Amino acid sequence: MESSKKPSENDSELLNLIKEMKKGNRRAVARLITKVENGGPEVSKQIIKEIYPETGKSYIIGITGSPGSGKSTLTNQIASEYLNKGLKVSIIAVDPTSPFSGGALLGDRIRMKSNFTNKNLFIRSMANRGKLGGLAMATKEAIHLLDAFGSNIIIVETVGVGQSEIDIFKSAHTTLVIMPPGMGDEIQAIKAGITEITDIFVVNKMDRDGADKRVNELETMLDIAENIMVDQNNQNIRIIKSKKWRPPVIKTNALTGENVPNLIGLIETHHKFSKTSGLKKQRLTYRYKHYVVDIIQYFQNKDIERLIFSNPKINEFIDQILSYKIGSDPYSISEIILELFSKRYFS
Amino acid sequence: MESSKKPSENDSELLNLIKEMKKGNRRAVARLITKVENGGPEVSKQIIKEIYPETGKSYIIGITGSPGSGKSTLTNQIASEYLNKGLKVSIIAVDPTSPFSGGALLGDRIRMKSNFTNKNLFIRSMANRGKLGGLAMATKEAIHLLDAFGSNIIIVETVGVGQSEIDIFKSAHTTLVIMPPGMGDEIQAIKAGITEITDIFVVNKMDRDGADKRVNELETMLDIAENIMVDQNNQNIRIIKSKKWRPPVIKTNALTGENVPNLIGLIETHHKFSKTSGLKKQRLTYRYKHYVVDIIQYFQNKDIERLIFSNPKINEFIDQILSYKIGSDPYSISEIILELFSKRYFS
Repeated sequence: MESSKKPSENDSELLNLIKEMKKGNRRAVARLITKVENGGPEVSKQIIKEIYPETGKSYIIGITGSPGSGKSTLTNQIASEYLNKGLKVSIIAVDPTSPFSGGALLGDRIRMKSNFTNKNLFIRSMANRGKLGGLAMATKEAIHLLDAFGSNIIIVETVGVGQSEIDIFKSAHTTLVIMPPGMGDEIQAIKAGITEITDIFVVNKMDRDGADKRVNELETMLDIAENIMVDQNNQNIRIIKSKKWRPPVIKTNALTGENVPNLIGLIETHHKFSKTSGLKKQRLTYRYKHYVVDIIQYFQNKDIERLIFSNPKINEFIDQILSYKIGSDPYSISEIILELFSKRYFS
Repeated sequence: MESSKKPSENDSELLNLIKEMKKGNRRAVARLITKVENGGPEVSKQIIKEIYPETGKSYIIGITGSPGSGKSTLTNQIASEYLNKGLKVSIIAVDPTSPFSGGALLGDRIRMKSNFTNKNLFIRSMANRGKLGGLAMATKEAIHLLDAFGSNIIIVETVGVGQSEIDIFKSAHTTLVIMPPGMGDEIQAIKAGITEITDIFVVNKMDRDGADKRVNELETMLDIAENIMVDQNNQNIRIIKSKKWRPPVIKTNALTGENVPNLIGLIETHHKFSKTSGLKKQRLTYRYKHYVVDIIQYFQNKDIERLIFSNPKINEFIDQILSYKIGSDPYSISEIILELFSKRYFS
């Protein structure tokens, strides 16, 4: 990892944006998130070091769910509830499936129709898969920026596919999983992993057929899950999964707002439980362990790439590999390179 | 990285499978590929160290292209041509978009209808995204296994999306990009990166309208590309891109086999060019540099994960982060951890 440099012109631009952001300048926080997205961890490092003492104050709500569950509309309603309480709310819409940011931006526009005049609301889409350090890392850093910006509530919304649920979970205080009413055999879509990351299940579109069926399915699934021993080898899950909290299942109608105040109540209940049970500290520990792993791996991986592709001393080792002799296989040579690297042979 | 252990029961099973594979036992090579897929680099390391001196003999052909280009049928025809010459051919069908191996296996069955009785043909699908080290690394290791197995030709076929074209390119001697005839504005699908990785463009379904149009589009694109200065900052591309080879564009009909012998001729021409121009050595160097980077990063990343999640000394550093003080941000603490790690503080 590089040691810190003297402030350059670029650094003073960052410092100025950070100053503006702390004053509540929305354009400044938007530009800082863009810098985090495009500049990668090298730029984030400068920003996070500067803003970190101002963070740790926001309540982070993760929202995920299958397409068609009404997730975005519900996010809107939840934001409105908190805005009505006079709180400052930020929404990060993460869409890793969007090759460009088009889809996510469209989502923004729909949301902004009802809320865009509200000065206490900040909305940001993140869909940039190609950036240095990856989308999950950029999202973590955007959360810290919006925390330092003074958001009381940060809602991180993602599409319910792949690794993204897990990534939300790592950064959220409370995670909601949104389900549409049960129709046919859609219950198969509820993957085993979902149960582990969910704090509250929301069956949205409660006015439709199948809402009660879906609630019953979820309750049955939770009954079964409570009786399954947690895998002792899967340490990560063991740390986080508190046996004392059974995720409640609540029905909502995101279009009308029906039951959304009760959902807010459940989030508050989960918040209190987290504090008294020690879950909050466990999650924070888990979150920052992951963040540290991300940071160290990023800089180490970059160092290795630079070594292998830019250091001329490497060529003799590659020539050894290309001799196809015993002991010259890529694994053996990698071991030798790594050993010499740790002894500063290449510097 | 772990030092080599004494042979265990598991190791002797591996050694036995390797012995069987070298005798030409197809079930043995299939089981070894499964071990590479499921066991990750820890298992691959043992296998590759053992077989590496027997590798470096196969000619590796990468085939990629958009869905609907007739890529699989063409792969079949190319394999048949080589089989007719008395050569031993292996096909690896990589499909990272398949969540399970279902789709790829279906592809196998279709192929096997015409070729499954041939003892000189080995076909394998790889679609396992979740494995340790990732699909690209497992594919590299399967290539080495099929090389040691005695394959004269290894065809690696992937769907033409995302990073997979680049990954094929890193392991192939000659890369074919298959295009369907041009209809409408499909030319937009030819991403800029494709030009860089292609050795031969194939316009398949030559009997259809638009085949000549597509050939003309490709030739025009190549005319333009030749006049674009290679980005001096993009070192990786600069190393590989030989300015002396202009990818030829050939029309084929994979269903009837028309022009496939001429395509085989072009592959042979490219092979000769690679040897005389130094391109072959450049590509091998590039391939093994990437392999070494993959290996070192895998083991380093694992070591860091083990450190952060298993070493009790880490907790005091996480507590520092959770104090939200100046200098206790995740980047600063990561720097401290990495420095102490390199000084063996945690061991």
